Amino acid sequence: MTKIVLSVNAGSSSVKISVFSVASHGAEPHQLAEAQVNGLTAPPPQVDYLRQDDNSKEGDSTTTTIYKGEPVSQVKLGDKSPDIQSQEDAFAFLLQIFVDDPKLAAISSRDDIAIVTHRIVHGGNYTEPQIVVGDTYAHIEALNDLAPLHNARSLDIVRSCLRQLPKATNVACFDSQFHATLPPHIRTYPIDPKIAEANMLRKYGFHGLSYAFITRATAEFLGKDVQSTSIIALHLGSGASACAIRNGKSWDTSMGLTPLAGLPGATRSGSVDPSLVFHYASDVGGLAPASTSDLHISRAEEILNKEAGWKALTGTTNFGDIATAGPDKPGHQLAFDLFVDRVCSFVGSYYVTLHGQVDALVFAGGIGEHSDRLRQTVVDECACLGFSIDNGANKEAGHAAGTVTDLTSKSGSRHRVLVCRTDEQLEMAREGSANESLWKS
Amino acid sequence: MTKIVLSVNAGSSSVKISVFSVASHGAEPHQLAEAQVNGLTAPPPQVDYLRQDDNSKEGDSTTTTIYKGEPVSQVKLGDKSPDIQSQEDAFAFLLQIFVDDPKLAAISSRDDIAIVTHRIVHGGNYTEPQIVVGDTYAHIEALNDLAPLHNARSLDIVRSCLRQLPKATNVACFDSQFHATLPPHIRTYPIDPKIAEANMLRKYGFHGLSYAFITRATAEFLGKDVQSTSIIALHLGSGASACAIRNGKSWDTSMGLTPLAGLPGATRSGSVDPSLVFHYASDVGGLAPASTSDLHISRAEEILNKEAGWKALTGTTNFGDIATAGPDKPGHQLAFDLFVDRVCSFVGSYYVTLHGQVDALVFAGGIGEHSDRLRQTVVDECACLGFSIDNGANKEAGHAAGTVTDLTSKSGSRHRVLVCRTDEQLEMAREGSANESLWKS
Repeated sequence: MTKIVLSVNAGSSSVKISVFSVASHGAEPHQLAEAQVNGLTAPPPQVDYLRQDDNSKEGDSTTTTIYKGEPVSQVKLGDKSPDIQSQEDAFAFLLQIFVDDPKLAAISSRDDIAIVTHRIVHGGNYTEPQIVVGDTYAHIEALNDLAPLHNARSLDIVRSCLRQLPKATNVACFDSQFHATLPPHIRTYPIDPKIAEANMLRKYGFHGLSYAFITRATAEFLGKDVQSTSIIALHLGSGASACAIRNGKSWDTSMGLTPLAGLPGATRSGSVDPSLVFHYASDVGGLAPASTSDLHISRAEEILNKEAGWKALTGTTNFGDIATAGPDKPGHQLAFDLFVDRVCSFVGSYYVTLHGQVDALVFAGGIGEHSDRLRQTVVDECACLGFSIDNGANKEAGHAAGTVTDLTSKSGSRHRVLVCRTDEQLEMAREGSANESLWKS
Repeated sequence: MTKIVLSVNAGSSSVKISVFSVASHGAEPHQLAEAQVNGLTAPPPQVDYLRQDDNSKEGDSTTTTIYKGEPVSQVKLGDKSPDIQSQEDAFAFLLQIFVDDPKLAAISSRDDIAIVTHRIVHGGNYTEPQIVVGDTYAHIEALNDLAPLHNARSLDIVRSCLRQLPKATNVACFDSQFHATLPPHIRTYPIDPKIAEANMLRKYGFHGLSYAFITRATAEFLGKDVQSTSIIALHLGSGASACAIRNGKSWDTSMGLTPLAGLPGATRSGSVDPSLVFHYASDVGGLAPASTSDLHISRAEEILNKEAGWKALTGTTNFGDIATAGPDKPGHQLAFDLFVDRVCSFVGSYYVTLHGQVDALVFAGGIGEHSDRLRQTVVDECACLGFSIDNGANKEAGHAAGTVTDLTSKSGSRHRVLVCRTDEQLEMAREGSANESLWKS
């Protein structure tokens, strides 16, 4: 029996929900609609809403844009005028849009929603999605200590969902779970093992929903089994990471105990000398003003997560502007070169750790999918490893059909270069509906 | 006119002095003797003293061991019984050994010493050695803020030297100066540029005296100009780092603002998620008990510099024990694999940043020079880059004559694999006596 699955993704300033129908256990989720509220930290918040026009023809449906960047206040929901302050408000608002849209036949009331999957950044030692019942919620809440900047908002929505959708099953999907396969010598930090164990200090890695999607999509594109597909995957967005995937499994990744380690991001420093922050400001070990009684965020973590990255160097979080700036903006050029350097550094490392057995270098994420200059520069810098890009295909990649596009140079390249339109929401729907027990009732 | 040059290297628990004669400006320093006191933090301290037997035949002299690991208290110095508590005491003691040894004809009184070169870890923005006069000392002292754990002891000895050897010229040689050529996009951290500039926050890099020696020795061995020699150099010891040297100049290196970043060391974590330490213990931003009114060391820096590394994983600082341990010591195997992983990661990164134009992979430092298993494993792991090692030559490398030994596989390797007996003391004597003004009087 077909089930309606929502995939909910709460960012620091946004909430995104995708609606899928899943025909039976193990069937590929089919997207019906998606909606998001952006700008929660820069009011007024805005709404986007897309609906698939033809739900019957898989892979072939076109979309209708219902709202695009409109202020939330202009959206009529029955008699109510929406007042959106938080991620929870945004979630309730988007839910109402789905119920109120007569053309989204699959959701005529809240009770039509069978499964809600939630993207939770830090999953600690969880190796698979968790149905949220009783203890699970408390366990997940305890992980807030490891990633207070990242988990808290998602949990607000899980809580809200338990209340607003009492008939739905909530499933937590973790961004760390794909990396449960990191081998001990890679996931271990060289610190006191007793303290490491007591405090759960090790490399976890994130962006795992995206890497799971990329691995599956790349294997399918190459006509290989996932179990024999090895790639270097780059998920490059406002948060950016790299992953070495050996035989379909995560072998190494650039993020660490938290998403701070590894590549720089829009406002994130990435890996810097761990003593740097103590020279940046005084009392960085103290609590940041953003802390609450439940959430303890050190000033240091705030500086490195929120006040660094390419925004600190250039003033903009928009990497597209940085990648296309002219020579009159030397700060932009510096930020571009710095990012390329750090990305190539991981490509080199992961090439070695995979012993050169690399089916493809795969670009994904907002920057990876949209900046042809970034892709071109990275591949050119990595030419000595046997990667080569086709300039034309690279420039046209944004218009290509399909999930994966081949950018490999036609004049010869030892390894393929691909770009993948990653879809964390679809991956959540897939993983969140995979548990057989959900299909028994 | 020949000058006597001392090279002084103060470690956290030791002081080492090498005695050189330099025949004229620009001439190669010729070693006459070396002596060191070890175990300052684990009393009783011990002394080693070697004298070259034949100073006339360059490159060909044998040595006489005068003391080897003997307790300092058993060494007779005139009527005095030595009491050694500090680096300064150790310096004065070693000086007296040189003066008292009748067979070290070049030093019959303290006044025979013309130049004393001091290894200073952090040189801030200094790009060359500095003669210590007036302001210079204050400038160097100010750098203590950047590296309180590393610079302070060397400065104690500089101060002591100004008093004890008033006729000598003191020259500060910086471990960071070789890396003055790091390009902006590599040396910049993605943080607020104003704070970075005000607080001098950037990648500096260290082990520069060693890398300068390695670069020159490798170029000579390969019969190339330094200016056209590009290598990946690994200085692996209790402190470990990697360096990408492009056309004779440092292009990237693994240490950062301080020596903490990059590879793990005996008691150092190397690069870890910068937020890790805030989850390791509470109040890590507070001062460590080791702090003084002049030296501010945060508890975090103490944890990551002194309580981590392979000692934390295995209980020993001796990497030789770790590399040769059997399967009954899984912690040792984990530490070995972890170190190899991090080293190979830099080899991969630097191979890419050098665009594959690599004349050689060069091993140096205590571990790099003495652990054939480490070299073998690293090169085997990096085989996909075109490195290959000769097993026999690798095993015998410890007995080879000469500064540089070729370990390249005879059955073919795209790039050479070398081991270099690095000599920071000689490099200090060379750089410290290079200033023409020192030779005018």
